[in-house]
Amino acid sequence: MRPTLSAAALALALAAPVSIPAAASAAAHPTQAEVLAASPASDWRAPVPENTLYLELPAGRVIIELAPGFAPAHVDNMRKLAREHWYDGTFIVRVQDNYVTQWGMPEETPRPMKTALDRLAPEFTVKDGAAALPFTVSPDPDAYAPEVGISDIFPAARDPRTGEAWMTHCYGIVGVGRGYALDSGSGAELYTVIGHSPRPLDRVITLVGRVLKGMELLTALPRGTGPLGFYEKAEQRVPIHSVRLAADLPATERERIEVLSGQSATYVKWREARRFRQDDFFIRAAGHIDVCNAMPPVRSIDG
Amino acid sequence: MRPTLSAAALALALAAPVSIPAAASAAAHPTQAEVLAASPASDWRAPVPENTLYLELPAGRVIIELAPGFAPAHVDNMRKLAREHWYDGTFIVRVQDNYVTQWGMPEETPRPMKTALDRLAPEFTVKDGAAALPFTVSPDPDAYAPEVGISDIFPAARDPRTGEAWMTHCYGIVGVGRGYALDSGSGAELYTVIGHSPRPLDRVITLVGRVLKGMELLTALPRGTGPLGFYEKAEQRVPIHSVRLAADLPATERERIEVLSGQSATYVKWREARRFRQDDFFIRAAGHIDVCNAMPPVRSIDG
Repeated sequence: MRPTLSAAALALALAAPVSIPAAASAAAHPTQAEVLAASPASDWRAPVPENTLYLELPAGRVIIELAPGFAPAHVDNMRKLAREHWYDGTFIVRVQDNYVTQWGMPEETPRPMKTALDRLAPEFTVKDGAAALPFTVSPDPDAYAPEVGISDIFPAARDPRTGEAWMTHCYGIVGVGRGYALDSGSGAELYTVIGHSPRPLDRVITLVGRVLKGMELLTALPRGTGPLGFYEKAEQRVPIHSVRLAADLPATERERIEVLSGQSATYVKWREARRFRQDDFFIRAAGHIDVCNAMPPVRSIDG
Repeated sequence: MRPTLSAAALALALAAPVSIPAAASAAAHPTQAEVLAASPASDWRAPVPENTLYLELPAGRVIIELAPGFAPAHVDNMRKLAREHWYDGTFIVRVQDNYVTQWGMPEETPRPMKTALDRLAPEFTVKDGAAALPFTVSPDPDAYAPEVGISDIFPAARDPRTGEAWMTHCYGIVGVGRGYALDSGSGAELYTVIGHSPRPLDRVITLVGRVLKGMELLTALPRGTGPLGFYEKAEQRVPIHSVRLAADLPATERERIEVLSGQSATYVKWREARRFRQDDFFIRAAGHIDVCNAMPPVRSIDG
């Protein structure tokens, strides 16, 4: 079993697949890893400190980069919530399998806000200014939208007929919990997608960002046994010690990570290497990739 | 926060969405729950005992229904492995976030097989007989295949140009670990998808079934910290006490669950209710659904 298990394991998640169109040689076609290794530093960027939240959990840190291009009012409000330390002492309250991990203040202990607003008009789509958002179009069809692609580091969709753009519900994307009232969300209650991407939620919830690091701290949790995956006992909740903006930490204390720009030449080369991944294990290139399987990669910088 | 949190939580995973085409009334359009509640018993079926495995883990039972229509030789071999108790005392050895949970015999303790074969020719696609497989076509486009839909209870794809059909890598679908050699899998080493569906694996791995119950026992596990998400320490592995075919248990001891037939009229009505879900929270119907978000639902029968 040794060669089989190790080879299967290796092959099942090979970090450096070889992209080989039929009848071509591997050498002539760089792998995803080779594309990234050859990329200029200018194709990568650090998370924007004013847009980056550090969630401190007992098991470690989760890093979320916010997307003011898609939800400017919510991002501004979340900066206020972080700066008034509103999030400190909140909890992960819900983990529903193949759906979402949700966090915020348990309903029985409401917490007033000082500088932030507790209701905001929804930002489900970008209308004015959508054309100004960067957008690298994906070449493959999407079940849900006429056009999908990557805007900066975020998966997104556009509708040429309406001129709207919106972020898409992919694994690790962060959304704003709300009630039935469209203005009942504020960025105080949040969730992230932990299963197959629930794209029917697109355009009915305000999406605010993307988890860049520490996703496993939100996914490898016991599923809640209450309705909708809520934890039934207070002691099951995972405490959130603090949430800080990277901008409010000394530069020396910020995580040394970078994300590939979705508008870079490297991103397109990397996406094509994924679309046409073919190697000793991937004997047949899919020739396609969906937007939630093609989010710009994150790398850590040895400090 | 009470109404907001509870309403948001309710709405985020509402079990009974209302399907309301624009300018129509809710009453005239059944919800997914209403469609299922009104379904005839004949549209549902119990898991086929000869095709159903019960994995007994310390935390409970995982139920997998195998798909002989897609991988007859592997399913036959897995029946042999279960009946010679080969799986008993194996372990979950790998949990890679947003990818797979994998189980089998750790490579340092190989276990010979008595009646089963340790290598099988791959069953990546169905060629001969593909036209005979039941298939309910999905109406929405797919990034990876010319045609997707549901075959029996399994998500699947077809290529009219080649006449081939294959199961698709959706959340909870079970695949056969293999090495680089195409015939190096046997059904002894298995994995299931625990994140966004990795469809590029379609047609390069033999898919054998679907988890029908207990998925959370395979997803809410610590992610492995070794390469590819393998557990680095033996004590981190999750023991699999036993794996039995439902057919080998007395009928009174079999799980009382049923799955909706993908070929039933109810399935199409239910899928349409999902495609056009619109209610007080889902203010805008997606009007679309992807195949991995439309697998036939499972229900338990009160015994």
